Amino acid sequence: MARWQPDAPGRLAAAALDLFEEHGYENTTVIEIAEHAGLTKSTFFRYFPDKREVLFGGGTVTGLLVQGIASAPSTAGPLDVVADALDALGRTFFTADRREFSRRRQAVLNATTELREREALKRIDLTASMIEALDRRGIPSLTARVAAQLGALVWEIAHDQWIDPGSTEDFGTLARRALADVRATGALR
Amino acid sequence: MARWQPDAPGRLAAAALDLFEEHGYENTTVIEIAEHAGLTKSTFFRYFPDKREVLFGGGTVTGLLVQGIASAPSTAGPLDVVADALDALGRTFFTADRREFSRRRQAVLNATTELREREALKRIDLTASMIEALDRRGIPSLTARVAAQLGALVWEIAHDQWIDPGSTEDFGTLARRALADVRATGALR
Repeated sequence: MARWQPDAPGRLAAAALDLFEEHGYENTTVIEIAEHAGLTKSTFFRYFPDKREVLFGGGTVTGLLVQGIASAPSTAGPLDVVADALDALGRTFFTADRREFSRRRQAVLNATTELREREALKRIDLTASMIEALDRRGIPSLTARVAAQLGALVWEIAHDQWIDPGSTEDFGTLARRALADVRATGALR
Repeated sequence: MARWQPDAPGRLAAAALDLFEEHGYENTTVIEIAEHAGLTKSTFFRYFPDKREVLFGGGTVTGLLVQGIASAPSTAGPLDVVADALDALGRTFFTADRREFSRRRQAVLNATTELREREALKRIDLTASMIEALDRRGIPSLTARVAAQLGALVWEIAHDQWIDPGSTEDFGTLARRALADVRATGALR
């Protein structure tokens, strides 16, 4: 019955989003998501531990961001490392063909407390992964924590702008501008 | 049956913590919490919408922090406003007699995914409340966002140190030192 599918997690996420929009998160089951994607329940559970996880990409974004931090130029300061990583993420993940999906996804998250909670936890986990990746570059621990928090804020600002219906700029450009704006606040003074 | 109790929410939180430690969060019911506190289920639901909320103080900390931000000296810069508010919180809420409870509470939160999620969402809500309070002081919106993020980080660092078994310093002192350390990273450069 179940057979290998290219990008099964992506199809499951798209199916889940359709159903959450139409019937609400609470009224949608894992079986319905799998069927809507033309897959089986056991395929679903191969990729996601539960329904709450299906819109969170199984750690892809975190992995790409950590990779981006690791491969930034060795001379870059902590915030520039984060900017480089967000830029890379814009080229590999937050691409134009994903913008509409991201916009719909965010609307569903914002409307569902259970998903907002999971999103909040993912943000903390993502920040923790950024801190570890910055630590591995030899950046002092507290500096890494500050840079990761500001990186998460820059991400949030850029992502909100990127999914705005009127927006045409790419994610990397928005992230670089948001970072420059955050710097210009001089809030650490 | 139910009668007015001084500090019923505090007694419910203490009872919940006892039971979560002894039997686990999953295996504890609202009725058991209420009984252990010598109160009724309906009293529980007068203060908390569900079991997940019982260790989160019903918005007391947020209220105190917002008040502290509003009443900081008018000449203070954004981060000093946050430092003042954290200091006030140390005098009114994170007092020595609450340290042991806070330490036990944090251990239970860290061990329970459902509570970690709720904590993560509370952190976002708290940050949003700080941003609004800073906005009301006329601080530019992005500066308020940066200051609130850094304030949340300072809070986290100070709170972790404050609940450390070897710690004897008060919360306000720890928060001021953490803020000075965060500033000294110069991570916005």
